[in-house]
Amino acid sequence: MTNPEEAIAAPAADAPAEAAKAPKAPKEKKEKPKKEPKPEGEAKKSGGGAAGGDNKGMGLRNSKKANFGDWYSELVVASELISYYDVSGCYILRPWAYAMWEVVQGWFDSRIKKLGVQNSYFPLFITEDVLNTEKDHVEGFAPEVAWVTKYGNSTMEKPIAIRPTSETVMYPYFSQWIRSHRDLPLRLNQWTNVVRWEFKYPTPFIRSREFLWQEGHTAFATQAEAEGEVLDILELYRGVYEDLLAVPVTKGKKSKKEQFAGAFYTTTVEAYIPETGRGIQGATSHCLGQNFSKMFNITYEDDDRQKQHVWQNSWGLTTRSLGVMIMTHADDKGLVLPPRVAPKQVVIIPIPKGSTAPEALQAMMDKVDEMTKALEEKGVRVVTDTRNNYTPGWKYNHWELKGLPLRMELGPKDMDNAAVMTCRRDTGAKEVVAWADVATRIPQLLETIQADMFAAAKARTADCTETCHSWDEFMVALNNKHMALTPWADEEEIEEEVKKKSTTPDAMGAKTLCLPFEAPPLPEGTKCFYSGKPAKNWALWGRSY
Amino acid sequence: MTNPEEAIAAPAADAPAEAAKAPKAPKEKKEKPKKEPKPEGEAKKSGGGAAGGDNKGMGLRNSKKANFGDWYSELVVASELISYYDVSGCYILRPWAYAMWEVVQGWFDSRIKKLGVQNSYFPLFITEDVLNTEKDHVEGFAPEVAWVTKYGNSTMEKPIAIRPTSETVMYPYFSQWIRSHRDLPLRLNQWTNVVRWEFKYPTPFIRSREFLWQEGHTAFATQAEAEGEVLDILELYRGVYEDLLAVPVTKGKKSKKEQFAGAFYTTTVEAYIPETGRGIQGATSHCLGQNFSKMFNITYEDDDRQKQHVWQNSWGLTTRSLGVMIMTHADDKGLVLPPRVAPKQVVIIPIPKGSTAPEALQAMMDKVDEMTKALEEKGVRVVTDTRNNYTPGWKYNHWELKGLPLRMELGPKDMDNAAVMTCRRDTGAKEVVAWADVATRIPQLLETIQADMFAAAKARTADCTETCHSWDEFMVALNNKHMALTPWADEEEIEEEVKKKSTTPDAMGAKTLCLPFEAPPLPEGTKCFYSGKPAKNWALWGRSY
Repeated sequence: MTNPEEAIAAPAADAPAEAAKAPKAPKEKKEKPKKEPKPEGEAKKSGGGAAGGDNKGMGLRNSKKANFGDWYSELVVASELISYYDVSGCYILRPWAYAMWEVVQGWFDSRIKKLGVQNSYFPLFITEDVLNTEKDHVEGFAPEVAWVTKYGNSTMEKPIAIRPTSETVMYPYFSQWIRSHRDLPLRLNQWTNVVRWEFKYPTPFIRSREFLWQEGHTAFATQAEAEGEVLDILELYRGVYEDLLAVPVTKGKKSKKEQFAGAFYTTTVEAYIPETGRGIQGATSHCLGQNFSKMFNITYEDDDRQKQHVWQNSWGLTTRSLGVMIMTHADDKGLVLPPRVAPKQVVIIPIPKGSTAPEALQAMMDKVDEMTKALEEKGVRVVTDTRNNYTPGWKYNHWELKGLPLRMELGPKDMDNAAVMTCRRDTGAKEVVAWADVATRIPQLLETIQADMFAAAKARTADCTETCHSWDEFMVALNNKHMALTPWADEEEIEEEVKKKSTTPDAMGAKTLCLPFEAPPLPEGTKCFYSGKPAKNWALWGRSY
Repeated sequence: MTNPEEAIAAPAADAPAEAAKAPKAPKEKKEKPKKEPKPEGEAKKSGGGAAGGDNKGMGLRNSKKANFGDWYSELVVASELISYYDVSGCYILRPWAYAMWEVVQGWFDSRIKKLGVQNSYFPLFITEDVLNTEKDHVEGFAPEVAWVTKYGNSTMEKPIAIRPTSETVMYPYFSQWIRSHRDLPLRLNQWTNVVRWEFKYPTPFIRSREFLWQEGHTAFATQAEAEGEVLDILELYRGVYEDLLAVPVTKGKKSKKEQFAGAFYTTTVEAYIPETGRGIQGATSHCLGQNFSKMFNITYEDDDRQKQHVWQNSWGLTTRSLGVMIMTHADDKGLVLPPRVAPKQVVIIPIPKGSTAPEALQAMMDKVDEMTKALEEKGVRVVTDTRNNYTPGWKYNHWELKGLPLRMELGPKDMDNAAVMTCRRDTGAKEVVAWADVATRIPQLLETIQADMFAAAKARTADCTETCHSWDEFMVALNNKHMALTPWADEEEIEEEVKKKSTTPDAMGAKTLCLPFEAPPLPEGTKCFYSGKPAKNWALWGRSY
């Protein structure tokens, strides 16, 4: 029988032909090599060249609607975001991807610093004893922990774990640094790599064995302060998704079954991919309560000289956010990047004709430089494509594949009209902008694109959320690839039964994505869609990544 | 017999009492627990309190001159830069240290981006086969490589190495991405952690088993371009040390014996710690030549459609730079931070008397706020210390320990005089600054401190460099804890003999630090200080970290 986890997963190409030139690497069992998306390098080779070349081979061979998984695998390679790596489940983040991660970092980092959070760096390694301190926590992670047992030709006396997350790395030191209420709050963050040797199907950005993230770890004297921060951070995570990546998310609380191992409770922002009908956890902000502070003995003296355990939070956002953004916006021509996160926002392409006189050509190039400067002064990230060995058509396709939000074309006619032709990546809409208006109109257009992309994605998600009061309605929604919002009795057994019963040969079972903070009223007497018991809250359900 | 490597090394406290509250961790053999420097937390506990408290316990118990190693170990903990960690050779970078690393990152990152270098991220793991591709290179690193052999309770089919550096991680992909001369230059950088399981004595910042760094990896069509970049980057490394950290360095080329494993040649900036008489490698910029491109088959088609191997460089700067800065400037009262890298540059301390009337107190606090705002507008990083449970004396000591470049005191007399008293951390010099001049004079003072600290360090280093033409002169210099600049026949056997012959029961042997780019003339007939053969160049020698 097909593993339903994999049936609608994006296929992973763990050892694509792209890596053919690389030295042979060992492959692990359980994962088979996949057919390889054609890298852009290939296309370039045939399409490029002094004569210009045609545009064939530049688009994507796969379609977002028809074969989402293949489309995604092809897209991330062709647009030069990712290279598949010869250690299974690990990926190379190429400059086009990493530059977006730097934008996310800059956005979030400046905001948490304003809240009073400080950056720091804790080691990659954890001793076995420390890792085992918090039982629920370690049980959640143990199967995925990678262990270092050797150095050079020697064996370590005891194996050392690679951090899957840093609660147990950090909290022994919290207990040393915190003595009195004057040492509180303690609010630390770090930007690091972590390793989780997962066996779910790996997918670039979405699920990888090593990934990049930030992890915040904070301690407060009171529950109220801790809970306040949980929501402050969740609001920033909403901001990363909605305001920066133009991806709509639902804020809510995780069910007990789905919450972080060892947490008091977990809050989350949940996104959704219409084409696969799957929800995806965007980022989580956990209130850890006093669970870890009791295990790690993190106490402070209050005003009455009594020892109190601190209240703690932890919260994390990963490179997965880029994957969600890509899946949300990209199309069959390639990436579609929201302007605020795009490494380059505008490409200026001069289009001389063969007959253009040298002086006219020079004037055109001067105008390109002038507009570039004017836009850069407005903070716009501009690239110019003045290469003379590619045709304009090739360049259009190239920058569409890379997802640049706006193209500016400058041909002889535009020179005559003292204007440029602009073309939006998201809608294809064209607009003539007079030279005199470039420095004001282009930044406006970029903000319009940003807003329109978000609105469009939000409408799609809203269209795919169905309110369901019965099991039949629920299964219709699921099989429509929709999410289901249901009244729920909030019992773990129901989640387990629902997951089992909604599993089909073609699709994984559904689970709760979250209990949304914003939900319709729940009048007394409303019944759980599944059990018929009195409903306690609304739950958002879906198949998920 | 004492191991001379350790005899003058900074003692490492691998399991200090600071970690007493943490769960017991396994200790490796070969390294013994060390006596523990008193953390500031302790001092706070006794010195602090509502009554103010005395200043005892605040200074350092060890002296830079008398017992450098203990002084350094105590300093990095007491100033809250570092916490010792329960995996031997790994350290926690606390916010005060990490904030300085962020300044270094910002400085260097913006400059390499201007040169056209792009950031990216490559995986932490390397397969064994790939690691073994370049023989000289792997031989240099093999004994220090950490190996992952397990995940959860399972054994990996083949062990996977943790990157000690990323040449072998990246270059298989360079060979895929580079096809024609249009794909060149390829200039990538990444900011990451790397692991080298070394058995030299670990020392915070200076030598740790996991450390943070940037590693640049670039490929060019021609030798000339590659060699140009090697020097461009070396100049930036000089800038990090001299212009940012106020640490004088000597630029030069490494001897064949000391160069990077697998390099064509290595250039370096070398610093020097007068108190220990030891040179220390600051950062290295390697020309890899075509060595790796031949091993990894990295070729491009030139204009004549001929396949050519690319020319490559790699270059790295680590958190060691902070350790060198600390060792260079700190004193028996604590850190002395150059203003440009200090997380906070100025502390403003209001000093009300018990008799100060409420309105006068309010006016004082308003003035503190006003000056803070005025300075922040000038880009000065300000902290105010308005805590009323510590005495002014305690605060002076505290901020001296943390190394803040400039203190501003505002007492009743200053209020009367419409001025503040300033006190420099580096010299102790005091200066009255009128309120009206604060926004202009304070930034000037910070630049003066920066320049004076560099000049003082440069003079100390110059005083400790002796030109030596004979073995006797050479040994006198070394035993004076000085560096020796000598004419040299540039033969590896000489280096080996010098190292052996200069090893004493108390001190390690000397080696070449570099062949300096700036050296005195070398008239024909000048003889090698050791062999008497014709000298080929000048070499800078020293005992070293």
